[in-house]
Amino acid sequence: MQDFQVRTVDPILELPPAHPLVTGATSGADLINAALRRPVSRTPVWFMRQAGRSLPEYRELRSGIPMLTACFTPELITEITLQPVRRHGVDAAIFFSDIVVPLKAIGIDLDIVPGVGPVVAEPIRDRAAVSSLRALTAEDVEGVLTAVRMLVPELGPTPLIGFAGAPFTLASYLIEGGPSKDHAATKALMVSEPKVWHELADRLAHIAGAFLALQVAAGASAVQLFDSWAGALAERDYREFVLPHSRTALSYVECAPRIHFGVGTGELLGAMSEAGTEVVGVDFRVPLAAAADRVGPDFALQGNLDPALLFAGPEAVASRVAQVLADAANLPGHIFNLGHGVLPATDPGVLTEVVAQVHAGS
Amino acid sequence: MQDFQVRTVDPILELPPAHPLVTGATSGADLINAALRRPVSRTPVWFMRQAGRSLPEYRELRSGIPMLTACFTPELITEITLQPVRRHGVDAAIFFSDIVVPLKAIGIDLDIVPGVGPVVAEPIRDRAAVSSLRALTAEDVEGVLTAVRMLVPELGPTPLIGFAGAPFTLASYLIEGGPSKDHAATKALMVSEPKVWHELADRLAHIAGAFLALQVAAGASAVQLFDSWAGALAERDYREFVLPHSRTALSYVECAPRIHFGVGTGELLGAMSEAGTEVVGVDFRVPLAAAADRVGPDFALQGNLDPALLFAGPEAVASRVAQVLADAANLPGHIFNLGHGVLPATDPGVLTEVVAQVHAGS
Repeated sequence: MQDFQVRTVDPILELPPAHPLVTGATSGADLINAALRRPVSRTPVWFMRQAGRSLPEYRELRSGIPMLTACFTPELITEITLQPVRRHGVDAAIFFSDIVVPLKAIGIDLDIVPGVGPVVAEPIRDRAAVSSLRALTAEDVEGVLTAVRMLVPELGPTPLIGFAGAPFTLASYLIEGGPSKDHAATKALMVSEPKVWHELADRLAHIAGAFLALQVAAGASAVQLFDSWAGALAERDYREFVLPHSRTALSYVECAPRIHFGVGTGELLGAMSEAGTEVVGVDFRVPLAAAADRVGPDFALQGNLDPALLFAGPEAVASRVAQVLADAANLPGHIFNLGHGVLPATDPGVLTEVVAQVHAGS
Repeated sequence: MQDFQVRTVDPILELPPAHPLVTGATSGADLINAALRRPVSRTPVWFMRQAGRSLPEYRELRSGIPMLTACFTPELITEITLQPVRRHGVDAAIFFSDIVVPLKAIGIDLDIVPGVGPVVAEPIRDRAAVSSLRALTAEDVEGVLTAVRMLVPELGPTPLIGFAGAPFTLASYLIEGGPSKDHAATKALMVSEPKVWHELADRLAHIAGAFLALQVAAGASAVQLFDSWAGALAERDYREFVLPHSRTALSYVECAPRIHFGVGTGELLGAMSEAGTEVVGVDFRVPLAAAADRVGPDFALQGNLDPALLFAGPEAVASRVAQVLADAANLPGHIFNLGHGVLPATDPGVLTEVVAQVHAGS
């Protein structure tokens, strides 16, 4: 199925043997240690979508600036990425971006439409369209990499998490032409034209992998592969059509801790752990202890407070945070997070309180 | 928490001892037998949302008629309900309606907006609003019951499945004011104001239960309780906040086979089986054999072909149907269905083919 050769990526991908993970400023960070199932001083915590609409300083900065413009402007990326670190005291920065950024970067005609999400001008549904997807190079995402290089010294001992969308989720946007509830065209292509599917997913895997590797090479200390929509698949289909490609993507970053996450993936946690990752992200539907049973002892877990419960008032939030910490008590490694992204209407003060409680330990 | 008295419902709820299930025209139907884990002549099959937009004859009939008007007009309900039975030869009719029909019937100001879904004029979020929800009586849904009485003789030996939305799903529409991806207001109310939540859910349970009972009393041979959104909850929350109320609703119909279904409920199948049901509906994410392990031998299962795969071409569809039948080989009872509703763009000819294949047995 891999009947094409991916362009050799930029020499920047040749990582030095003395990788920042081992010797750099973040090597002793709790986030890194938790990911590697080493002892931590306290449970590390960050929030998916912490850099975004829940923060007034973000909304102010983004005012009038289209999402994709922000995602390619180093100063904006840097400032937005730093905002939640300053405000909440989280244990990691997550690189401000969008999963379609590398697709835009290789020339796909798409936009992020407010209230809708990514919209692709010409959906990709046949071999010819798939062939038009070229490999990602450092030059394609130079603004992004500049931001990483600006961020790392600013962050000092706080790790920067790089990220990319996983092949299935990227493919769904490209095939459907935008967000989809049922992924019908994606699943139909997958099953009826497996060769076309595998070529598309393989190209996307190399794009996602290269994007992650470039971020690490520029200074990110860990990465997260987001397979937002993987939960739409039954495990059999996930294993046949998706897992090999997510494995390809994650194989680009064997030198830094990797987090592999999707929503509604209770049935897939075991399979997702086999993609080549140190950490499995767990959504809020599966208690962490149950998730640990599914993935076995060789993985740290990340999660899994229900972001909707941040609206339930301080007492309820405190009790749910304590519950997640209790669920995580016997894990080999735990990174506290939500079980899904921060909802835009979330009171950021509540997030700050959650960080304090997690750091206090109960 | 149940500090109010539900109005005594119509005497029509007093079912005769000689219930149609036992002695009526549908008592030997494969659907009924499968639900009760009795021998069948062949696997029965029907499709969620079979009465609806995938059929050209439906689109023609509905042209210019708002959804809620159709849902209260006996002749339209009857004709729409019969269309898929005639066309596909399915083993059951599913009563054409919408889960918000009983809410509309008790006077809640709501509409079904094309492309959006149910929209509630004044969301219900406090005790006073909850108190305004009154019990459902036969007079409230007279048009609906007239349709049932018209349908039953037309259908002859083919069972009519009555249906209602489950308390959590109904509550989510009322609290959010419309469809929601995250159910944040619903979850927040549930957790922060449990008394208000339980009163709301209890009232909705009696409304849903009465609606089901009225349909059975008017001649429906089985019922399905749709908890479309239950999969948004972790099992702990489902058990504490939802299960007791779904049990109340289902307790209204102990004399007819009950099907209990929700989407993305892999984690909840065991809990949902405890609500008082004969059949557990399984979405496409969990293989039927795995679902059987979760609910034990005392339940028939319904499901679970992925509706998106109906777009994958005849060969793939046939192979997937065969897979579902193989997965179901050792179940104590199996009703073939999709793992979610028919998508509007589905070619109805494909559905007819699926029925033929299921009836052929492999």
